[in-house]
Amino acid sequence: MDPAHVNVPAMMDLTIDNITDNTVIINSQGSDQRLTYVMERLVTHLHDFARETRLSTTEWMAALNFLVRVGQISSDVRHEFILLSDILGLSLLVDAIDHPKPPASTEGSVLGPFHTHEAETIPNGDLMSHDPEGEPCLVLCSIKDVSGNPIEGVKIDIWETDSTGHYDVQHSNRQGPDGRCVMNSDKEGVFWFKAIVPVPYPIPHDGPVGQLLKLLKRHPWRPAHMHFMFEKKGWDHLITALYIRNDPYETSDAVFGVKKSLIVDFSTADAAIAQKYGVKEGSKVLKHDFVLVDEKQTERLRDENALKAMKKLGRKVKLLNHLPVPDVD
Amino acid sequence: MDPAHVNVPAMMDLTIDNITDNTVIINSQGSDQRLTYVMERLVTHLHDFARETRLSTTEWMAALNFLVRVGQISSDVRHEFILLSDILGLSLLVDAIDHPKPPASTEGSVLGPFHTHEAETIPNGDLMSHDPEGEPCLVLCSIKDVSGNPIEGVKIDIWETDSTGHYDVQHSNRQGPDGRCVMNSDKEGVFWFKAIVPVPYPIPHDGPVGQLLKLLKRHPWRPAHMHFMFEKKGWDHLITALYIRNDPYETSDAVFGVKKSLIVDFSTADAAIAQKYGVKEGSKVLKHDFVLVDEKQTERLRDENALKAMKKLGRKVKLLNHLPVPDVD
Repeated sequence: MDPAHVNVPAMMDLTIDNITDNTVIINSQGSDQRLTYVMERLVTHLHDFARETRLSTTEWMAALNFLVRVGQISSDVRHEFILLSDILGLSLLVDAIDHPKPPASTEGSVLGPFHTHEAETIPNGDLMSHDPEGEPCLVLCSIKDVSGNPIEGVKIDIWETDSTGHYDVQHSNRQGPDGRCVMNSDKEGVFWFKAIVPVPYPIPHDGPVGQLLKLLKRHPWRPAHMHFMFEKKGWDHLITALYIRNDPYETSDAVFGVKKSLIVDFSTADAAIAQKYGVKEGSKVLKHDFVLVDEKQTERLRDENALKAMKKLGRKVKLLNHLPVPDVD
Repeated sequence: MDPAHVNVPAMMDLTIDNITDNTVIINSQGSDQRLTYVMERLVTHLHDFARETRLSTTEWMAALNFLVRVGQISSDVRHEFILLSDILGLSLLVDAIDHPKPPASTEGSVLGPFHTHEAETIPNGDLMSHDPEGEPCLVLCSIKDVSGNPIEGVKIDIWETDSTGHYDVQHSNRQGPDGRCVMNSDKEGVFWFKAIVPVPYPIPHDGPVGQLLKLLKRHPWRPAHMHFMFEKKGWDHLITALYIRNDPYETSDAVFGVKKSLIVDFSTADAAIAQKYGVKEGSKVLKHDFVLVDEKQTERLRDENALKAMKKLGRKVKLLNHLPVPDVD
C-alpha cells in the first residue's frame, strides 16, 4: 500500500500511554466492523495485561517461545491450542456464550482436541470400540426437542478413549479410527451402540500445555466421559459429553467441562434388555435422552443475552449477524 | 496428582459468570507469586475479551487455527510470534515498560524477529554488509554514559537488510551471516564500521501475520533503519535502531518503532574523513552517539514507574525481584 494512502494520523514516539490508541486506530481502517471491534478489544486487553503486570522482556520472550512450541507440537491429530484454551477455561466460556441453553435442553461441554472427521458411520447396535481390554457397555439414547418430540436424522459424532485412557489418534501405530463413530437418529429419535466404559485420563501433558499445568501445580486429569456432538440443519449444534458419576476427578476436571446435568449412572442389563440388544445379562447400560434446541430459539436467546450483558458492561452496541459491534449512531 | 490433594474448592457447573474466578483459583495453587499474578491477569483479560465480544465458536476456532499457523511457520530463523507481537504494539509496549529511559539517554526501539546469535565479531573499520548493490556508508559511533563519559568494552550487535530489503536469514540459499556483526567499543567508547544505506522494507508478509495485516488493510512496511543492541554488565540492555529521516513510512511503521530522537541524517565524507576512514570522498556518513544507562538507575526508574502506575490503577502491590505481585498483607 502506498504510504500516502494510509488513512491514519502520523504515528511516532509511541509510549506506554499512547500505544494502545494508536494501534487501535491503525487497525480500524477496514470496513469489517466486527473485525475492527474484536481487534479493538483484543489489543486493549493485551496491552492492559502488559501494563497491569509490568510484563518484563524476559517474561514476554518466554511467553512467545511457549506459543511457538504450542503451534509446533500441533498436527492433524493434535491441536495444542485447543488444549491451551481448554485449560484456561476459554473453551467452556465460548461454548456457554455461543450456545445458551433454555432450561429443558441438554447442556454443552468442551469439544476438546480429539474430535476427528474420519470416523465411520455405523448403524444402530454396532460396536464403536474394539479394545478387548475395555469393559463393554451398551449405550441407549434418544434425541428430542424441548417439547418431547423425537428428532429424526440427526448426525451424531461419538468418541471416547480406549481402556488405557488414550484416543485412537494418540497411538502412533494406529491402523484407522477406533473408539469413535458417526450415527444417525432413527424415526423415533433413537440411536444405540456398543462401547466400552469410559475411564478417567490425563489430557496430553507431554507438551507445552502439560509443562504449564505442572508449573501451576495443576493435575492434567479429566473425569471419565464419552463425547457427543449433534448436528442437524435447523437445530443448534450441540457439543457435549456424559460424565460417569463419582469419578475421582468429578470436581477438578482439568478443562472445566463437568455439569451436574451431564453426570450419568450405569444400570445393569436384565434378561429382557440383554436379549433385545444382544448383550450379556448383567453388563453395564448407559441410558440418556438428549434434548436439542431449535436454531432460531438459540439465536434469540444468544441475542438477548448479548444485549443484556453488553448493557450491563455499559457498552453501546448493535448486533450484526448476531454478533455485537459498536453502535456509533 | 492425587485428586484428594487438589487444594481448591469443588468445581462444577461453570458458567459465563463464574468460570473466571474458578480458573484463577485452580491456577493459584503454586508458590510462585509472580506466576500466580500474571496468570490471574491473563485469564481475567482473556475471559473479559470473550465476554465483551461475545466471541463465537467460529471466531474462536479461526483464532486458534491462526495461532497454530503462527507457530508452525516459525523456525530457527523466523519468529512469527515476535512479528505478531510487533504489529499488535505489544513489543514496543513491553520494551517501554522494561527499559524506561532517563531524559539524556538513547531511547529503545523494537527488536524485531531478525536478530541472530551467529554474527561474526569484527574490528573497527570492517565491512559488515557485502551486498554489491548496496550504497556504501560509513558509520561512526560512540557510547557514553548520561554524564558524557565513554564506555569501553560494550558488546554491540548490529544488523540491517541487504539492498533488496531482506535480512540474510530470509534468503534460502545463504552461505552464512551477512549484514550483521558484533563489535566492541574501544577505550574512547568508539566503534565504527562500513555498511550499506538502509532501505525501507516490508516485514515478512507471506505468512499468517501478513494475512492479518491484509485483513486489517494495513501495509507491512518499515521505514529504513539499522538495528543496534548494546550489552555490558552493569548497564541496562539497550535494544534500539536508527531511522533514516524522511522515509515514506516514517509515520506509519508497521511495528510502531520510530522515535524522533532515533531519526538520523547522513552527512557526506569530506577529504579528511575519506582519508582517515578509508572511504571515497563524497560517500555517505552516519554519525551517532549512543547513551547507555546504569542498570541500577534503570531499575530504580522501573520500580518507581511500576509502583506509580499500579497505584493509579488502584492495585495494591509490592515488588518481588522488581516485578509487581499483589500485596496481601
